[in-house]
Amino acid sequence: MEDRVETVSIRRVTEDGASDIEDIVVREFPLTIVLNDQELVTLLCSPSNLKDLAVGFLFSEGFLQSRDEIKTVTVNSGTGVVRVQTEGGDELAREALFSRLITSGCGRGASFYSATDVSGDRVESALTVSVRDVLALAREFQHRSETYRATGGVHSAALCDSISVLVFAEDIGRHNAMDKVFGECLLKGIPTDDRLVITSGRISSEILLKVSKRKVPILVSKSAPTSMGVKLANELGITLVGFVRGKRVNVYTNGWRVTTDN
Amino acid sequence: MEDRVETVSIRRVTEDGASDIEDIVVREFPLTIVLNDQELVTLLCSPSNLKDLAVGFLFSEGFLQSRDEIKTVTVNSGTGVVRVQTEGGDELAREALFSRLITSGCGRGASFYSATDVSGDRVESALTVSVRDVLALAREFQHRSETYRATGGVHSAALCDSISVLVFAEDIGRHNAMDKVFGECLLKGIPTDDRLVITSGRISSEILLKVSKRKVPILVSKSAPTSMGVKLANELGITLVGFVRGKRVNVYTNGWRVTTDN
Repeated sequence: MEDRVETVSIRRVTEDGASDIEDIVVREFPLTIVLNDQELVTLLCSPSNLKDLAVGFLFSEGFLQSRDEIKTVTVNSGTGVVRVQTEGGDELAREALFSRLITSGCGRGASFYSATDVSGDRVESALTVSVRDVLALAREFQHRSETYRATGGVHSAALCDSISVLVFAEDIGRHNAMDKVFGECLLKGIPTDDRLVITSGRISSEILLKVSKRKVPILVSKSAPTSMGVKLANELGITLVGFVRGKRVNVYTNGWRVTTDN
Repeated sequence: MEDRVETVSIRRVTEDGASDIEDIVVREFPLTIVLNDQELVTLLCSPSNLKDLAVGFLFSEGFLQSRDEIKTVTVNSGTGVVRVQTEGGDELAREALFSRLITSGCGRGASFYSATDVSGDRVESALTVSVRDVLALAREFQHRSETYRATGGVHSAALCDSISVLVFAEDIGRHNAMDKVFGECLLKGIPTDDRLVITSGRISSEILLKVSKRKVPILVSKSAPTSMGVKLANELGITLVGFVRGKRVNVYTNGWRVTTDN
């Protein structure tokens, strides 16, 4: 696997003068996903966990329902191509993807949301978690985000139970980071229901739709949700926890899952 | 124009207990762009400057070259549809857009970059700017970002000369914020060459391609660039200034445009 950061020569400039120094920047890598011999999409991503990313993306976009449908996944990190062969793959995947694409200027997403579209994805889990556990998980999550600390340029996502981080991924894109987590879960058969997902990024409608597809009942972020994120979380039965800062959290929806017990 | 934020009821939870309070979240709004009676794309955006956003998007994606090509732009903010009629608009815009789309998990972008593709967009401006002016502009830019301070959920972008911010826009998506700025410039005939652009977001290849299309010689961000952002800026002749913090800046490429003179 290729490095996730690159060293560059920069000038550090102040009013008092300039100096030439070395700095590191996060790598941006184009990954083309070929589904059943059809070029589907090129993602700009961090060059790690490319197999997970491709599988997670295909699942999020509805091209995969389970691991059993996957015949082969071949990664060529030199050319930046992942080839995925699935059962029954002669539909018009490319057009199907396009008709589902929404670009938010900061992310692709699912087709225009309506309550009827997503009602089948409602999350019914009875999981509850204490605010103490949420805060502890958020701290562990933060400590794992090494690339971010080095370069200030990546997002992280993780699957957790109430005790610890189980699956962790980083990417320049917040959607990619989450697709990497869910791709790894799918490939390794790791259950995602009755668990939490933490993201470093803003919680928008697109992230909610990914999470609900995996039946995750609790979504946690240091950042803020959008209005549509809150609306969707409410209707999808997902507990949305945002602005995790210091010793407090904001619970936007389905608050019964976050308890003050210890 | 609709409000950019919404009030929601939330629970603030600490280990000591929970309280129900009102909070505000940033709105996320689906805007569908219809180009010459063909539904092109739906952007998830902040509901402000919708006309600018549509025009800026069409320009960034190559469907518009100048204001003269625009016959009409009609915004219906109730239904979330912008209709744009242009001269000579009977090509297959939708397919053309798709073939250019790259989803980065945090943004759409231009087709897979190669040096030959972009050489025509090389920026030749002789503009220079002092580091003092860059720092002052960054401070003014920061002060303008009101919605962000309220909700923690939006990006900002601005066109500046060396003295002040000329055009400013905000959006939940960093690409949308920049498209709004460039759309307003296009509609009002505001020149963008020999000027600076500031963005609150990460500098990726997609942002560089937008900026180079508008011949902007200096791109400034508080955030970090990606490796491909640095490479493109170098080849496109754009001065990339990142990590603007306090009294210093990092200049990644074409550093001759940033002087220590006052």
